[in-house]
Amino acid sequence: MKVTDIIEKTFNKIELTEEEISFLIQEYTNNQIPDYQMSSWLMCVRFNGLSEKETYFLTKAMIESGDVIDLSFIDGIKVDKHSTGGVGDKTSLVLGPLAASCGNIMAKLSGRGLGHTGGTIDKLESIPGLNTNLSDEKFTDQINKIHIAIAGQTKNLVPADKKLYALRDVTQTVNSLPLITSSIMSKKIASGADVICLDVKYGSGAFMKTTEDAIKLSEAMINIAHKFDKKVICFITDMEHPLGKGIGNRIEVIDAVNCLQNKGPKDLEDLCVTICGYMNYYSNITKSVEDGMKLALEKLRDFSAYNKFIEMIQMQGAKVTNFDNFIEAKKVIPLLSKSEGYISRIDALSLGLIALELGAGRETKEDIIDPNVGLYLNKQIGEYVTRGDILLYIYANDKWSDDIIDRLYLAYKFSSEAKEEKPIIYKIIE
Amino acid sequence: MKVTDIIEKTFNKIELTEEEISFLIQEYTNNQIPDYQMSSWLMCVRFNGLSEKETYFLTKAMIESGDVIDLSFIDGIKVDKHSTGGVGDKTSLVLGPLAASCGNIMAKLSGRGLGHTGGTIDKLESIPGLNTNLSDEKFTDQINKIHIAIAGQTKNLVPADKKLYALRDVTQTVNSLPLITSSIMSKKIASGADVICLDVKYGSGAFMKTTEDAIKLSEAMINIAHKFDKKVICFITDMEHPLGKGIGNRIEVIDAVNCLQNKGPKDLEDLCVTICGYMNYYSNITKSVEDGMKLALEKLRDFSAYNKFIEMIQMQGAKVTNFDNFIEAKKVIPLLSKSEGYISRIDALSLGLIALELGAGRETKEDIIDPNVGLYLNKQIGEYVTRGDILLYIYANDKWSDDIIDRLYLAYKFSSEAKEEKPIIYKIIE
Repeated sequence: MKVTDIIEKTFNKIELTEEEISFLIQEYTNNQIPDYQMSSWLMCVRFNGLSEKETYFLTKAMIESGDVIDLSFIDGIKVDKHSTGGVGDKTSLVLGPLAASCGNIMAKLSGRGLGHTGGTIDKLESIPGLNTNLSDEKFTDQINKIHIAIAGQTKNLVPADKKLYALRDVTQTVNSLPLITSSIMSKKIASGADVICLDVKYGSGAFMKTTEDAIKLSEAMINIAHKFDKKVICFITDMEHPLGKGIGNRIEVIDAVNCLQNKGPKDLEDLCVTICGYMNYYSNITKSVEDGMKLALEKLRDFSAYNKFIEMIQMQGAKVTNFDNFIEAKKVIPLLSKSEGYISRIDALSLGLIALELGAGRETKEDIIDPNVGLYLNKQIGEYVTRGDILLYIYANDKWSDDIIDRLYLAYKFSSEAKEEKPIIYKIIE
Repeated sequence: MKVTDIIEKTFNKIELTEEEISFLIQEYTNNQIPDYQMSSWLMCVRFNGLSEKETYFLTKAMIESGDVIDLSFIDGIKVDKHSTGGVGDKTSLVLGPLAASCGNIMAKLSGRGLGHTGGTIDKLESIPGLNTNLSDEKFTDQINKIHIAIAGQTKNLVPADKKLYALRDVTQTVNSLPLITSSIMSKKIASGADVICLDVKYGSGAFMKTTEDAIKLSEAMINIAHKFDKKVICFITDMEHPLGKGIGNRIEVIDAVNCLQNKGPKDLEDLCVTICGYMNYYSNITKSVEDGMKLALEKLRDFSAYNKFIEMIQMQGAKVTNFDNFIEAKKVIPLLSKSEGYISRIDALSLGLIALELGAGRETKEDIIDPNVGLYLNKQIGEYVTRGDILLYIYANDKWSDDIIDRLYLAYKFSSEAKEEKPIIYKIIE
């Protein structure tokens, strides 16, 4: 089999066989196909796409490039949740305990990843003492006891994706539906869960800028999931403005804890209750999604979810369970409104980039996260403000430049009329 | 300037600036841009093409990547001829002496290259004693004395093309009109001639399979040439079947010598006389192309061209001027016809590949050519044969397998009716 023949076929939109795709991924992972040939093929895929069949073979080959997690030693239906990435996305911190408190089994393995703020693991590790480096025994034991554990990913899961993603990132081949689909789905399927809830974000702070693109990606992922006999539900959600109020690792923990204590923010609560409703239904805990959502809201309101969160972090070693004075930043600077009116825009991407600049996230794998920095919204989208009102607080340490204040303000727009509130979930596809 | 931005622009069909293209080529030549980013850009070019302006900037940047030959120390108009490559193409061996015998200045620098048989330099070097490694002084001196020298290319001409071509060859990005155009034209313009005759071949044994593609390439090359104030004439010629009778290095020398001695083959003679006619006109030797062709035929018929050939090879050290027993092959095997009829097809590519297999050409730069092996047609296209007639002779040494005979025969087709003879030149564009 020759790589050049495979490239030529994809250039000419001739469907590749399973053998050809498997050869391509296996040999590339084993460093037998050079980057320059792979990037040439990837660019053909960006131009011509891949068929459903090819996307399935690609996902399969990627899964087979590394370890696959076997959760069969844990009884029952295992649920998982994945987000395509957004600004201020602390959903897992709320949804995980909420789902477990309803009886779902959340055996969650998370990555650190790159982004405006850290991944779920980074957020959890911002809690002093908390350990995400769990042995297989400890992981299983904790799940059997309290139905939830969130651990760092240590296995060699989908090495092909790691290598491919690094190449795609520097060759302008990230933006391709079948490549995004296979990258996400290979990791989710290799993670071993039975029911996978995908939070597909659209808007300024998301990878998919429009609802149309988010719907296309969702449909492609669901198609692939069916071929692997997995249940996937896609929640297409708004990422025009940040989710919740906090952006930054410890700041997001506070946001999550507030939500678990029934103190909002409302968008985060709505999202978690809805996703949990679907989990409850597909785990056979309730007879309908509606009942599932009712149960979820009940478990949130009676503090079962909050208690589950505390139980989880304590079992993973947390030395702190009260988050009142959790943030230790050198500077806390309020951003004041110069306008009067309803907040009609808080650009998620702008806020995300500034959080990254403050040190809340990673640009390269080697970057070290500062858990204390970030942004905390005092007012959310749609709220009415007058001049001098505090829009948000900036938590900063050494990474600081004075023009951040002006740049942050540019992310805001105001309107004299109240707009109808947009629900956080645009559409659910399953 | 970022390579990824440049790739993205070409992906989106946004025209690149001269600075961007110059950056791309310069940094790639200097190993500052990795192959995997360049192949990604090249694939975008294969999909989306380049504008005329971009192709000009690319050609310019490639020329500027290395040395440019200055022929201004030689008086008069300098002519050059280039072929896009075919099977049995010994045109330069005939046309060079013919043009010089008419008074044209042929300061020809040739490469070795890869292909079914060697390049012009390999063919000349198959003559014992002949030296193509001429010093600048010797080269100039010979041209001033006899108007012709054919030397190997030693200067660092268009290193960007060498590097790019090697990459294109393994990433399926050879087949792109602007990339082919800039590759050919950068080398021709860097070679310093004023009048450039391009033999653009089409058909089975050529890179361009159809006359349409050959015309498109010709028009693109002429456009670029105008921007550099060079005169380019494109001769679109038939490469469905091999040119002349010989395929192989010494065999092609014999073919050329026969032609210079007015013993045909006719297709080769027609081609050389026509191209020489244009050279005579554009070098101001004759007042019209027709007069130019008349003069060329005159110089061929009165053996001036043949004498010029002998003069040239002697001045370059040849110890042999009689080619009657020139070929030293272990085996000379006739291919016999099993059919009766007019030969309606001799597939050029099939014959070329078998010549390569016998050792007549190079697949990689390191391969060593066997000058004695190859094929010699006993019957050309359109001739009538009966069963048992000899179609061609195979000259072989150690690289031999018995099934070559059967495979060669598959290249032939026969017809009960004589077809009208196709002229070797399909179209001339200037």
